[in-house]
Amino acid sequence: MAAHIVDERTKELQRPSTQIILRTHTEPSQDLDEERRRATFSVSELAYVLNGGKELLEKKQRLAEILAKTSWGDKSKRYFLSREEEYVGGLRAALGIWEKMKAEELCLADGALMRSLVDFPGGLELHIGMFIPSIISQGSPEQQAKWMPLCMGLRIIGTYAQTELGHGTFVRGLETTATYDRKTGEFVLHSPTLTSTKWWPGGLGKTATHAVVMARLMMPDEEGGGVRDYGPHGFIAQLRDLDTHLPLPGVTIGDIGPKVGYNGVDNGFLSFDHVRIPRDDMLMRFAKVTPEGRYVPPPPSNSKASYATMVFVRADIVKNAGSSLGRAVTIATRYAAVRRQTAPAAGERELQVLDYQNCAATLLPLVASAYALFFMGEAMMAMYRQFEKDRDRGEFGALPELHALSSGLKALCTWITADGIEECRRTCGGHGYSKLSGLPSLFQNYVQNVTWEGDNNVLCLQTARHLLKALAGVRQGKRVSGSAAYLNEVAVELAPESRCGATCDKCWLGADVMAAALRHTAARGVVTAAETLTAATGGKGLVFEGRAWNENTVESIRAAKAHCTYILHQTFVQSVDQLEAAAASDPGATCEQGRAVGAATAAVLRQLAALFSLEQLERSGGVAALLEDGYLNAAQAAALRRRHRLLLTDLRPNAVALVDAFGFPDYLLNSALGRADGDVYRGLLDMARGSPLNATQEGPAWPDVLKPVLAARSRL
Amino acid sequence: MAAHIVDERTKELQRPSTQIILRTHTEPSQDLDEERRRATFSVSELAYVLNGGKELLEKKQRLAEILAKTSWGDKSKRYFLSREEEYVGGLRAALGIWEKMKAEELCLADGALMRSLVDFPGGLELHIGMFIPSIISQGSPEQQAKWMPLCMGLRIIGTYAQTELGHGTFVRGLETTATYDRKTGEFVLHSPTLTSTKWWPGGLGKTATHAVVMARLMMPDEEGGGVRDYGPHGFIAQLRDLDTHLPLPGVTIGDIGPKVGYNGVDNGFLSFDHVRIPRDDMLMRFAKVTPEGRYVPPPPSNSKASYATMVFVRADIVKNAGSSLGRAVTIATRYAAVRRQTAPAAGERELQVLDYQNCAATLLPLVASAYALFFMGEAMMAMYRQFEKDRDRGEFGALPELHALSSGLKALCTWITADGIEECRRTCGGHGYSKLSGLPSLFQNYVQNVTWEGDNNVLCLQTARHLLKALAGVRQGKRVSGSAAYLNEVAVELAPESRCGATCDKCWLGADVMAAALRHTAARGVVTAAETLTAATGGKGLVFEGRAWNENTVESIRAAKAHCTYILHQTFVQSVDQLEAAAASDPGATCEQGRAVGAATAAVLRQLAALFSLEQLERSGGVAALLEDGYLNAAQAAALRRRHRLLLTDLRPNAVALVDAFGFPDYLLNSALGRADGDVYRGLLDMARGSPLNATQEGPAWPDVLKPVLAARSRL
Repeated sequence: MAAHIVDERTKELQRPSTQIILRTHTEPSQDLDEERRRATFSVSELAYVLNGGKELLEKKQRLAEILAKTSWGDKSKRYFLSREEEYVGGLRAALGIWEKMKAEELCLADGALMRSLVDFPGGLELHIGMFIPSIISQGSPEQQAKWMPLCMGLRIIGTYAQTELGHGTFVRGLETTATYDRKTGEFVLHSPTLTSTKWWPGGLGKTATHAVVMARLMMPDEEGGGVRDYGPHGFIAQLRDLDTHLPLPGVTIGDIGPKVGYNGVDNGFLSFDHVRIPRDDMLMRFAKVTPEGRYVPPPPSNSKASYATMVFVRADIVKNAGSSLGRAVTIATRYAAVRRQTAPAAGERELQVLDYQNCAATLLPLVASAYALFFMGEAMMAMYRQFEKDRDRGEFGALPELHALSSGLKALCTWITADGIEECRRTCGGHGYSKLSGLPSLFQNYVQNVTWEGDNNVLCLQTARHLLKALAGVRQGKRVSGSAAYLNEVAVELAPESRCGATCDKCWLGADVMAAALRHTAARGVVTAAETLTAATGGKGLVFEGRAWNENTVESIRAAKAHCTYILHQTFVQSVDQLEAAAASDPGATCEQGRAVGAATAAVLRQLAALFSLEQLERSGGVAALLEDGYLNAAQAAALRRRHRLLLTDLRPNAVALVDAFGFPDYLLNSALGRADGDVYRGLLDMARGSPLNATQEGPAWPDVLKPVLAARSRL
Repeated sequence: MAAHIVDERTKELQRPSTQIILRTHTEPSQDLDEERRRATFSVSELAYVLNGGKELLEKKQRLAEILAKTSWGDKSKRYFLSREEEYVGGLRAALGIWEKMKAEELCLADGALMRSLVDFPGGLELHIGMFIPSIISQGSPEQQAKWMPLCMGLRIIGTYAQTELGHGTFVRGLETTATYDRKTGEFVLHSPTLTSTKWWPGGLGKTATHAVVMARLMMPDEEGGGVRDYGPHGFIAQLRDLDTHLPLPGVTIGDIGPKVGYNGVDNGFLSFDHVRIPRDDMLMRFAKVTPEGRYVPPPPSNSKASYATMVFVRADIVKNAGSSLGRAVTIATRYAAVRRQTAPAAGERELQVLDYQNCAATLLPLVASAYALFFMGEAMMAMYRQFEKDRDRGEFGALPELHALSSGLKALCTWITADGIEECRRTCGGHGYSKLSGLPSLFQNYVQNVTWEGDNNVLCLQTARHLLKALAGVRQGKRVSGSAAYLNEVAVELAPESRCGATCDKCWLGADVMAAALRHTAARGVVTAAETLTAATGGKGLVFEGRAWNENTVESIRAAKAHCTYILHQTFVQSVDQLEAAAASDPGATCEQGRAVGAATAAVLRQLAALFSLEQLERSGGVAALLEDGYLNAAQAAALRRRHRLLLTDLRPNAVALVDAFGFPDYLLNSALGRADGDVYRGLLDMARGSPLNATQEGPAWPDVLKPVLAARSRL
């Protein structure tokens, strides 16, 4: 239909006297080729680091090619699906991957890689991500033996039903009940109120046959006089008939409707009307109910183990944040290098959008953030693995620190990513508003991360609580270890004579100057939160919950963010040091394994680390806090600003190379604007042809809506 | 299907010994009733101000009831439509309103009111908003006589085709050509390159039969040796056959595919392959081409007149920004008053989410922003009307100022609104991620405003250019008038001894202290941008375009924002003063006309104005700039922060009343969370029942996708 768009200049335009601005968009890839030639470091070396080595990177590229050719992995219609088609398509993709793994006996890591490449969340997400893990971690050996074959053979599909209409993050508020019936040896699952309706579980709406249901365990007294509430516990409940897929009696289920994104997933609602399940279907690895109705509480270490799972999930969210932001900056940076708008002077070629300072000032700090988040995710995974080792030795000492740190980092990193994706989208101007850019779907699917697995503000408050308790401890003469150890020196840090050591613009590139400034900001944040809170309690000192706490959360959240920013900076710098040191000590295979980089790459990474931190300081009110404290003087603040702007220029030649190094295949990006060859305008036009509205020339409104109005009247 | 969700407490739960936290969600409206009783001012008085008087407010409510009952205005399925259904639905709604206006002989204002209430953008947007206005403003009297009856009788549907694949905001870069053929007296419309393809015009894809096409007017020399390019001009082109709706020969059209939002509109692409149109169809009110091929340039004042249209459009965008943000804060504030999460202490009732400081710290400043934007929109409309009067007297002196001011204000206000809607959505937690909250669609339809009608960054640079030129003038001894008049005193303002006069926390409530601080920030911003720019030119002084300008846009954009923030504050404060003065001078009818408020209302509005400005100062780096300058000392900065937090407490009792005063009918909000009665959980469940996935119990994947896997295996 759009086949005869004229791609050649017409004779008129080729006449010498024409004044039209000549354009050379016929070879769009030239701009990207030129960008790639400007790189000062080895892209493949860095790509190995970011992708776990050469082998994994090549596997990713290879899998992408294979997946693109499958019926269920093809993405050409992805942006055109109705909600129902998206739901069916998401399931087909998940089942396709599942079958392929079985047929080719692939490992779980390959499965996860395929799922990330196909990038089509569907009704199996919680079967894989929550139902099976819950049975493994909370089921007794007998329960695992019974349920795991059913799960792995896809003879049942499960979900995890925790959140209710009335309660999300606050789990203790759940209202669904599981009341033990001593006579029959069954639990009665029941939804006593409207607000107790389960709401949100993925796959619950139309897919799952079973669910792990979190319900308050209610044990009637033996005399039958009262009921004792033991709080939320997990129960396996069958929801649908396996032959007809109809809800079982007493079970009401449905889809909760469309969302911002994630619409391939049938998030559902569920209520129980006195549904009976056998006693055996309470998850009994830890807490138990005996046949005669005695409650056996979990051993004390169990609660710690469940915290560990949370830490793992959050580490995974941080890794995923880095890669999601990486996708967005890849698209936006490549497009900004190809898009040209407005010639600086008559007769000159139009400028690449990336050469406007405000565009670079948006994108380059986000490139830096994506790297910061990547290194943080790696570090958190390493911390988690260390914790596993400790745990196996019965050592749980690191857990409070790990829990507090992972809470705030989950929050800060998902905020940076969600906001960053949207900023990337906006730098693409009008074309970023098109779904064909890939950015709208990326944002719409991603942004739930600021809410789920703990609302970000609530998580920041958990980190803040840890920091404020640490501060209180220090003031009582205790010593703090871990990431908040700087609070041991808080009195010196915040003494009036404490000053930033930067004496020149370039000093802001020094990791020590930056670390000191970020540390000071964090310490100031914690102390300000403490002061505010103490003032609110009428000088009665610190409290960590209740009204005074809730009414003074703004400074606490700020403190948590400042603390996590400091950790992100430290982790970034240390990671680069380690990579460079590894190259020096073993210049051989380590690079291909993604465990080392040379000096040129390390130098660019250090620029990114500096840019990341300068940006965070300027954005988050850090500079204001440092000035207010007298830690920074006016000249230093101006130097910081100048050095931030100069870093944009320093990093500009490496912009495209830095996003190439993420190693995202075009198949994953699925973006007309982000394609590696830079042929963006042809990409838009080619993709637009598939729009369902283009199925006919007249469009779907013509016969019934437009024709009665237009055709009739036009003949008047 | 979900009919037997149990809404009553079961016997078990009513037993006295139960430890479950008792909830009273059965009467959700109680929370809002209670909130409404706490208001310290008259909601109706303020609602009249925000809605143009009692009569208009009541008309709005009445129309909403009528529209909800029409087939095309019913919103019960709105969130469940596929792209194709959305396109057809949007057209049906537009045609429904059009017919109703004809049938009942309603005025244009009523039509606009109905369109805003039905809130369903469709294929007629540009017919109404751009095609008809272009013919009126740029067509000759003969052209108006010919085309207007066709437009108004809907015998044709038009669009406005300006943006191309390769060029949006930079109009001079357009590539489509209209070459005059002297022999036949026709223009030949042609798309010489891929990037010249028209891309984005609303209604172009499948609806419009005609378009005003912006194309470079190319006039061949009489000798035929060359072609002279006169730059972009408007031409009316027929695109589709009126009987078959098929594209005419040489015309390629299609839909550009789905977008973030606005999917009822068929934004389209268009290319011409040497399509001939009569000479008469160039829009010839100003520039002309005579039959013999002579170009008659427009009279000099014409370019000024077209600037005037731009000012009007931007004033309208600012008004709309206030109302869009008002919708979002209405939904989020009501929900935050109803949603309860976590009891402050055992046995106590769970807290309203709005009583967590971080929630209030998000929502109340956004309420304040919505008010600030409302008053700014009103003021800009007044400025525009004044300009119209001046223009009719041949007086164009105010135009540069108006143009510069409206550019930056469009940018700042749409940024505040787009980001604010998303912040509102996030404060609603998980339920905000559901489309049923109304917030996702509001954001998705709104966010294009930061890009269209001039990309926000580009517009800020226009304002910055005006400010920097003004500063250069002042330094050469000229005086500046208008909004930048403070630059006349820039030397005094930025002298080292210039200090903030605040001596107490409460001082920050004073409009003068605040205005002085904002003025100082703006002046500092302009001077810093000038210094940065001068440094980039190697001390050769200021330039306003070219490479040095483009590579130093960050400080310029900051300066523009700081300037506009100052104007927003001034306008807010002056508007409240005027409203209060009007009540004093004529306490009668003026209140019902929405032109006056009493002292109680004025006091609350002044708190909002202070909160708006304190928030902007803290967020935008204003505090850092003031500290860096020594204008603010540490004690003053701390006082500013304390006063900001205290305003949250001061305004808390009026939160719900302040959003009620916007007067949005439930029909407009179409939100399970924002409904005026607060029955949010029932609202979610009722709306979710309509999800297309719930059309069957088994869901659309069962027969072909799930059954082959599950039913077969479950019998193994």
